[in-house]
Amino acid sequence: MTIHDLDTPAIVVDLDIMERNLRQMSDYAAAHRLRLRPHTKTHKIPALGRRQIALGAAGLSVAKPGEAEVMMAAEPAEILVAYPTIGARKLERLAKLAHGTRISIAIDSLECAHQISAAAQAEGVTLGVLVEFDAGLHRVGVRPGAELQGLVQAVAQLPGIDWEGISFYPGHIKSLDETGLAAIRAAGALLEETVSDLKSHGLIPRIVSGGSTPTWAHSHTLTAMNEIRPGTYIFNDKNSVGIGSCAWSDCAASILTTVVSTAVSSQAIIDGGSKTFSSDRLVWSSEVSFGEVVGYPTAVFHKMMEEHGFLDITRTGHTFHLGDRVRIIPNHICVAVNLHERLYGVRGEQVEEIWEVAGRGKLQ
Amino acid sequence: MTIHDLDTPAIVVDLDIMERNLRQMSDYAAAHRLRLRPHTKTHKIPALGRRQIALGAAGLSVAKPGEAEVMMAAEPAEILVAYPTIGARKLERLAKLAHGTRISIAIDSLECAHQISAAAQAEGVTLGVLVEFDAGLHRVGVRPGAELQGLVQAVAQLPGIDWEGISFYPGHIKSLDETGLAAIRAAGALLEETVSDLKSHGLIPRIVSGGSTPTWAHSHTLTAMNEIRPGTYIFNDKNSVGIGSCAWSDCAASILTTVVSTAVSSQAIIDGGSKTFSSDRLVWSSEVSFGEVVGYPTAVFHKMMEEHGFLDITRTGHTFHLGDRVRIIPNHICVAVNLHERLYGVRGEQVEEIWEVAGRGKLQ
Repeated sequence: MTIHDLDTPAIVVDLDIMERNLRQMSDYAAAHRLRLRPHTKTHKIPALGRRQIALGAAGLSVAKPGEAEVMMAAEPAEILVAYPTIGARKLERLAKLAHGTRISIAIDSLECAHQISAAAQAEGVTLGVLVEFDAGLHRVGVRPGAELQGLVQAVAQLPGIDWEGISFYPGHIKSLDETGLAAIRAAGALLEETVSDLKSHGLIPRIVSGGSTPTWAHSHTLTAMNEIRPGTYIFNDKNSVGIGSCAWSDCAASILTTVVSTAVSSQAIIDGGSKTFSSDRLVWSSEVSFGEVVGYPTAVFHKMMEEHGFLDITRTGHTFHLGDRVRIIPNHICVAVNLHERLYGVRGEQVEEIWEVAGRGKLQ
Repeated sequence: MTIHDLDTPAIVVDLDIMERNLRQMSDYAAAHRLRLRPHTKTHKIPALGRRQIALGAAGLSVAKPGEAEVMMAAEPAEILVAYPTIGARKLERLAKLAHGTRISIAIDSLECAHQISAAAQAEGVTLGVLVEFDAGLHRVGVRPGAELQGLVQAVAQLPGIDWEGISFYPGHIKSLDETGLAAIRAAGALLEETVSDLKSHGLIPRIVSGGSTPTWAHSHTLTAMNEIRPGTYIFNDKNSVGIGSCAWSDCAASILTTVVSTAVSSQAIIDGGSKTFSSDRLVWSSEVSFGEVVGYPTAVFHKMMEEHGFLDITRTGHTFHLGDRVRIIPNHICVAVNLHERLYGVRGEQVEEIWEVAGRGKLQ
């Protein structure tokens, strides 16, 4: 089967680029003695989790218990649920998985820790816990300093829990420009102070987990950090390029679409909209663009409805015809993959792999 | 099972409201002798298509061949693929379905008509065709007047095709304010002129198909129209309310979420973001809101990441606790449903129905 046999819209993954991205991150982590626990929310495919492990990942990260259940098929040595998981039903499911592999959860409340402790004891297992602190994104996480120390101290004493360390997410860094680099340096200093504070209270974190695709190449400058959890790097997307963490030639995934209407002049309508790409806008720019049209940088993907993508082609100097195939690098590949039943891995024009997106829609 | 037994995030459908919405539209269509071919892209569930048919729908509408295949289980007398369907593989699939029910396709190019004709002849079936014209949305559709006449004339002569009439989508109407009502009147006048033009050329459309949820209650004022294809009305959403086509009490579907973090002051984080709601913004307002928090109209759902919803609760005067359940009416229910594996139909607190979203992700 070749790429021409695929019906559209379809997510196509260039295997050469994907493999290079995977190796690059593994090599980087190994060179800097960083644990790598890639976030599988990007691909949601056990076969890809397995490849990350084969390349040296210590374990895998997920957001939801349903994703953890799916990712067990990759046989990871550890799964980190990098999400404050609340509720007896969810924690019972995670505790059951802990019979098969090490399960850890990143939390930011004592109440959650109590629930984890109860679930672990009921199931007769130990669950790892990372205590999340807020490094500036203001999403989840307690304040570093006294609040973090207090929570760590309380968590470390709970039965059924193995306190592993601390975690944070540097998602407030939206660009690797001077401001972004300064924010990375500030995060590094905050982290060092935070870890040293904990140590001075006798609380020694085995794991200090942070990192992300945007900041990955600067991870070693955060000297107090010993684990990274990038996700997007396997494929990259328009956001990764805009933020400055990769080049267009590092984007492994694109969405193959077909021109289905040219009836309205100065535009081409493609067969994918918010149900194919998601309606995520760019995180690094206020420009309204829903993706990069490969080969036509002056085409503007400026509007979408559920199944229609609107390309303004006036500046391309190119005539688009009905049935033409157009490849688009989406703004945010993680939400796009979650909309598709399968991904197609290609080498050149040959389709070598077809992966079911097994973790798609595992919201609970 | 009650609503309290559902894990979150989950889409909950109030059956009383849904049934009232379904009846209201059916009664309206019957009273005004309008054919009703509801768009099933909103629910993607054959059992709900079946209910629409039982209430008098002439058939069902879909966007993609994969959705048509799924919707065959509802045993509709006709399926309209309200999308310019291009490509031999897709059209072959539709032609195969035509052995089981009447299949029509809305198109806007002669090239597409030729492909349909070829597929119909190869399969030994007849496919219905509606010719789409642009009523002001500038999405798909040829220009009314000479361009439309020319295309209709050519299409009507092709073997394997039964030319049924014309179609349009009044999606440029974003509000039922004075401007919107004027646009509806203008669309009505354009439609009358268009149909009368066609008739004067001996081209008599059996079906003149338009309509949508936002404009549904004004459909009878477009006297040349004899079919409507609303979709969202079964559930409604924040957009429907904002546009003015229904009240909050007509919103049947909401997304049940759980507060998972209150660590950062002045906000509550819920366990649903762009992978639960979609990142669709409001169509009728530039306000950044991703949904209406039921019971807390002053809470602002102002930001989301993949699995995190950010509620600014400063103006609510209410303290949100970890584990609290929060119901949210999404901006756009059609894209939200497409993210979920199933919907839960409830009457009061009892879960009466669990539907698999069988058409979810049927992008091809």
